[in-house]
Amino acid sequence: MKIDLEYLKAELNKEVTEHRYIHSLGVADTAKQLAARYGADPLKAEIAGILHDFTKFWPKEKLAQYIRQYQELAQDLLDYNAELWHGPVASIVIQERFAIHDEEVIMAIRYHTSGREQMSLLEKVVCLADYIEPSRQFPGVEEIREMAKSNLDEALRMAFDGTIQLLIKKKMKIYPLTVKARNDLVGGND
Amino acid sequence: MKIDLEYLKAELNKEVTEHRYIHSLGVADTAKQLAARYGADPLKAEIAGILHDFTKFWPKEKLAQYIRQYQELAQDLLDYNAELWHGPVASIVIQERFAIHDEEVIMAIRYHTSGREQMSLLEKVVCLADYIEPSRQFPGVEEIREMAKSNLDEALRMAFDGTIQLLIKKKMKIYPLTVKARNDLVGGND
Repeated sequence: MKIDLEYLKAELNKEVTEHRYIHSLGVADTAKQLAARYGADPLKAEIAGILHDFTKFWPKEKLAQYIRQYQELAQDLLDYNAELWHGPVASIVIQERFAIHDEEVIMAIRYHTSGREQMSLLEKVVCLADYIEPSRQFPGVEEIREMAKSNLDEALRMAFDGTIQLLIKKKMKIYPLTVKARNDLVGGND
Repeated sequence: MKIDLEYLKAELNKEVTEHRYIHSLGVADTAKQLAARYGADPLKAEIAGILHDFTKFWPKEKLAQYIRQYQELAQDLLDYNAELWHGPVASIVIQERFAIHDEEVIMAIRYHTSGREQMSLLEKVVCLADYIEPSRQFPGVEEIREMAKSNLDEALRMAFDGTIQLLIKKKMKIYPLTVKARNDLVGGND
C-alpha cells in the first residue's frame, strides 16, 4: 500500500480537535507497536490509527444519514448511542476521500469502537490501541497496558469489560455486538 | 386455568433437591405477590414459579437433546453456559407432562433465566421473583427487594446488571439476549 501518512495527518488535523488529533497519533503509534508485536501489518495499523476518528465530530444527523445510506453498515447502530456511529461512517468516508480500499484497514476502522465477533488481528490491535494509547487516562488503564505486552486477547477482553461495566454504572444501553466481541475472547462455553 | 397446585408441587418434589424445592415455592410465592402488585395473573405467576426449575437437575446431555429437538427453542443456547438450558427445556416439558398450554406461563418459564427483548409482565415477574425470593442471599439482594416494591423494571434491570457483572468477574460468557433484555429496561437510545 503506497500512501502519504503526512497528508492523512494533515487532513485529519482539519477535521478534529487538537486533543483528538493527539489521541489519533497516539493510537497510530500504539497500533503500529502492537502490530509489530503480534504479527499484524504495522503500516495498516498506523493508517487505521490515524483515520479511525476521522468523522468523530460530524453532526449526529450526518452520521445517521450515512448509516441509513450504506446498508452494509449495521442498521441497528441507530438504536444505540451515537458514540458508536463514527467508526462505521469513517470506514466509508476514507474510501471516498482517500481511495483507501484495503479491506483490513476499512474493517479495523469500522469496528474500532464496537468490536465484533471473530475480529481480525488488525481489528484487535486498533481497538486495543484506542483504549491504551499514551494520552488515555482512566482507572485500570495501566493494568490493560501491562497485559497488552503479553496477551492481546486478554488485554482486549479487559478493555471491553471495562466499557460494559461503565455502561452499566451509567445505566446506558450496551451494544450486543460488543458483548459478542468480548465473549469471543473468553474461552470455552462458559 | 384449572390446575392442582399441590399435585405440581408433589411432582416437583420428586425432581429436585430439598433446597431447590424450597426455592421454587419461594419463587411461586414471591411471583404471586409481584403479580398482584403489578397487575399480572397471580395464579399463572404461581404455576410458573412452582415449575420454573423443573428440569434443573436433568443431565446436561438430556437438556441439550431437548434443545436440539425443539427448534422453537433458541439453538444458540448450546454455545453458552448450560445454566441457561433448564428454563427453555422446562417450558417444553410442562406441556408434555402436565398439559399446561398457557402461552404466558410457558414463556415465563422459558425465559426466566435469560430474559428476552420485550418481556411480558408475567415474564418480568417470574424472572425477578427468581432473583429475590426469600431464600436468596447475595450482595445487593436487599436493594433489589426494596426496589421491587415500587418499580418492577428498575428492579429487574438491577438484577440483570448484577448477573452481567458477576459473569464479567468470573470471566464467563454473557448471553447476548440477556443484554437485550436489560437494554429494554433502560430508557432512551443511551
